[in-house]
Amino acid sequence: MNDVINLMLSHRSIRKFTDQQIPQANLETLIKAGQSAATSSFIQSCTIIQVNNCDKRAHLAELAGGQNYVAQAAIFLVFCADMQRHQLACDMHQQPMQSGFTEQFITATLDCGLFAQNVVLAAESLGLGSVYIGGLRNNIAQVGELLQLPDLVYPVFGLCLGYPAQNPEVKPRLPVEVVLKQDCYTDENDQTSINAYDQQLKQYYAARSSNVKQQGWSEQISKMLNKEARPHMLSYLQSKGYLQK
Amino acid sequence: MNDVINLMLSHRSIRKFTDQQIPQANLETLIKAGQSAATSSFIQSCTIIQVNNCDKRAHLAELAGGQNYVAQAAIFLVFCADMQRHQLACDMHQQPMQSGFTEQFITATLDCGLFAQNVVLAAESLGLGSVYIGGLRNNIAQVGELLQLPDLVYPVFGLCLGYPAQNPEVKPRLPVEVVLKQDCYTDENDQTSINAYDQQLKQYYAARSSNVKQQGWSEQISKMLNKEARPHMLSYLQSKGYLQK
Repeated sequence: MNDVINLMLSHRSIRKFTDQQIPQANLETLIKAGQSAATSSFIQSCTIIQVNNCDKRAHLAELAGGQNYVAQAAIFLVFCADMQRHQLACDMHQQPMQSGFTEQFITATLDCGLFAQNVVLAAESLGLGSVYIGGLRNNIAQVGELLQLPDLVYPVFGLCLGYPAQNPEVKPRLPVEVVLKQDCYTDENDQTSINAYDQQLKQYYAARSSNVKQQGWSEQISKMLNKEARPHMLSYLQSKGYLQK
Repeated sequence: MNDVINLMLSHRSIRKFTDQQIPQANLETLIKAGQSAATSSFIQSCTIIQVNNCDKRAHLAELAGGQNYVAQAAIFLVFCADMQRHQLACDMHQQPMQSGFTEQFITATLDCGLFAQNVVLAAESLGLGSVYIGGLRNNIAQVGELLQLPDLVYPVFGLCLGYPAQNPEVKPRLPVEVVLKQDCYTDENDQTSINAYDQQLKQYYAARSSNVKQQGWSEQISKMLNKEARPHMLSYLQSKGYLQK
């Protein structure tokens, strides 16, 4: 279609990186590209911690469940939803801040998503690869302590950036008709479409160059959702001043 | 830097559109570009309702607080966080699904953000303009009813797409040093940086071609956060099966 869309369509997560470094000026360009994304009511609530210290990197790799690329990537960023900055803005104008609303949690979290997706795509346009690290939420309290995050700041996910040392295949997504619906929600044809997609994904997993497996999407999802999902999250977020009402 | 990054840096929300239509095949390309974004644990939990019906559009424009471009844009999409699809996947494999976890709310919501940001940028690469409509959450229950959203599906935001009939200025963002920190969180220089940014933003608001105002960022934020933020959100989301634990 065009270069931008082709870049998106060729996205794969990269988990092996070369030793090549990334100039800090390039990272700042990526950050500016990220900031250019829309931000709900101009809230600008995304703060990024760039982790350079080797011991901290190794510790974060372990806290994320043993993801060694967190330690190895040229750059590792932690995207934080930050309303501490807004507390400061309120203090600057002697206004009390009403915090703890679920709505604020949504806008602060989404801000990080929009920002990060621009960073990822901008990085890919420079020949870099990336992988999001949701695994930081496995041990979110320890991550928050390590990065000295104050109240109203929580680590949403990490992001590894570096020059790719692997070339994995693009993973097929759900058929468009499953994710795009007309005028109202209906799932009457979804099972048929998902069955066909399961077969497609099995072929992809069987043929890919690493981590070969035999599983469709629906089976994979059903096994994952049969378990608890990071049950510590709500109490952690409430302790940081989020999701209280 | 390059065309992709320049496209990001030139982003502005567009709220006035021409009458020119967008071929459905182009929208499907945008959706595929959106799907190509990373998705936490391959969860693929974003579902989009394309609203074509004129009465529904007019109603949504009103529910969003009287944003008439919701009715006028060539395309209007509602991005929904959808775990109903995962309930179906679990049913297909006779696995009970454990739902209601805050972690699942985060991944489902973020999926919509990453997906949508790709759609926005892909649209801009085709000469389209866009604006996110968080205002749908003003009356989220009515939006959900209008779109017949089942349990485990909630409308995160809307998105208008169309050919721009305006050319607004790019709005300056916070200085990079405020949003990018090294190795740990610190805000010791933030107030100085925000003061300088407030002045920059006042100049932007005073000089821009429409909706001229006299306000810095910190003042704007302090006035917004002095009020409740959509206090109905938590009970609505819990009623849909989210944020229960």
